[in-house]
Amino acid sequence: MQKLKNEELGRPDLIAYQQIKKLPIIMVLDNVRSALNVGSVFRSSDAFRVEKIILCGITAQPPHKEVLKTAIGATESVSWEYFEDTKEAVRQLKSENTKVYAIEQASNSIDLRVFIPGERTAVIFGHEMDGVAQDVIDLCDGCIEIHQEGTKHSLNVSVCAGIVCWELHKKLTSL
Amino acid sequence: MQKLKNEELGRPDLIAYQQIKKLPIIMVLDNVRSALNVGSVFRSSDAFRVEKIILCGITAQPPHKEVLKTAIGATESVSWEYFEDTKEAVRQLKSENTKVYAIEQASNSIDLRVFIPGERTAVIFGHEMDGVAQDVIDLCDGCIEIHQEGTKHSLNVSVCAGIVCWELHKKLTSL
Repeated sequence: MQKLKNEELGRPDLIAYQQIKKLPIIMVLDNVRSALNVGSVFRSSDAFRVEKIILCGITAQPPHKEVLKTAIGATESVSWEYFEDTKEAVRQLKSENTKVYAIEQASNSIDLRVFIPGERTAVIFGHEMDGVAQDVIDLCDGCIEIHQEGTKHSLNVSVCAGIVCWELHKKLTSL
Repeated sequence: MQKLKNEELGRPDLIAYQQIKKLPIIMVLDNVRSALNVGSVFRSSDAFRVEKIILCGITAQPPHKEVLKTAIGATESVSWEYFEDTKEAVRQLKSENTKVYAIEQASNSIDLRVFIPGERTAVIFGHEMDGVAQDVIDLCDGCIEIHQEGTKHSLNVSVCAGIVCWELHKKLTSL
């Protein structure tokens, strides 16, 4: 088994990637505090062909230095927009016939392992300590939960976003 | 949908967690440079009931300040040990009838989406820039690859570890 060199991976360049059809997944960041986490979400979204990232509230926007540090270029390949109020972003997504889910541990949440994405799916990730705001959850079509069994109450938000991207990509590409 | 409070999540405390049977997954960190990434791997390993983490080479060990910062307590719940040389860790794991896989983009790699874990599985995550060392790969039973489609060549190592934990946990618990 030989490690592949970067040029052997067959990755698209920026121009080619922009032409590729994206998966109908929107990542919404509701007041994520750490710009390093934001950059990491860009990097994962690039890898799994996410349509768009919506940055809300205090969430740092490119070209913030720490976003660029962990995105390592993915801020150029992944589309993004900014909303001051996360609730406005949710209302707009719903007006575009998009199902909107908060990634949260909540009553009546859907287990990510059995979640089936519809035609266009938005997933909201919340603040590192406070999670997704309850008034944002109140506007959502549902909550999706990452089943966990440890002593800690949650995962790091960029890890959480990576797992959700991975799982939605897998389901949307039927593997 | 109401967000659950921490005390409503039904998480085990440290004493209860230590009694719970762990999944036969060993996370091996081969010269991971960032202590923040190491702490995050502890946090994900706690969530997905990983048996043990093996820290190798330059990988920071608890109680390193940055490991503790992102592990937020998971260094207490997850067992770990240290090897100076990753190859020695691989040899020991193989002597314990454990299948050892490098998480790498390599010739003849197995796609994580279709990988079936055996009785006891160790997965090796490499340095942020250099990946898993080729002489470590040469000792492994195989490479497992996270399928990616973006412009970037890899994922953040803690995101990568989170996805692998999630997927192995799901497969070992039959969901």
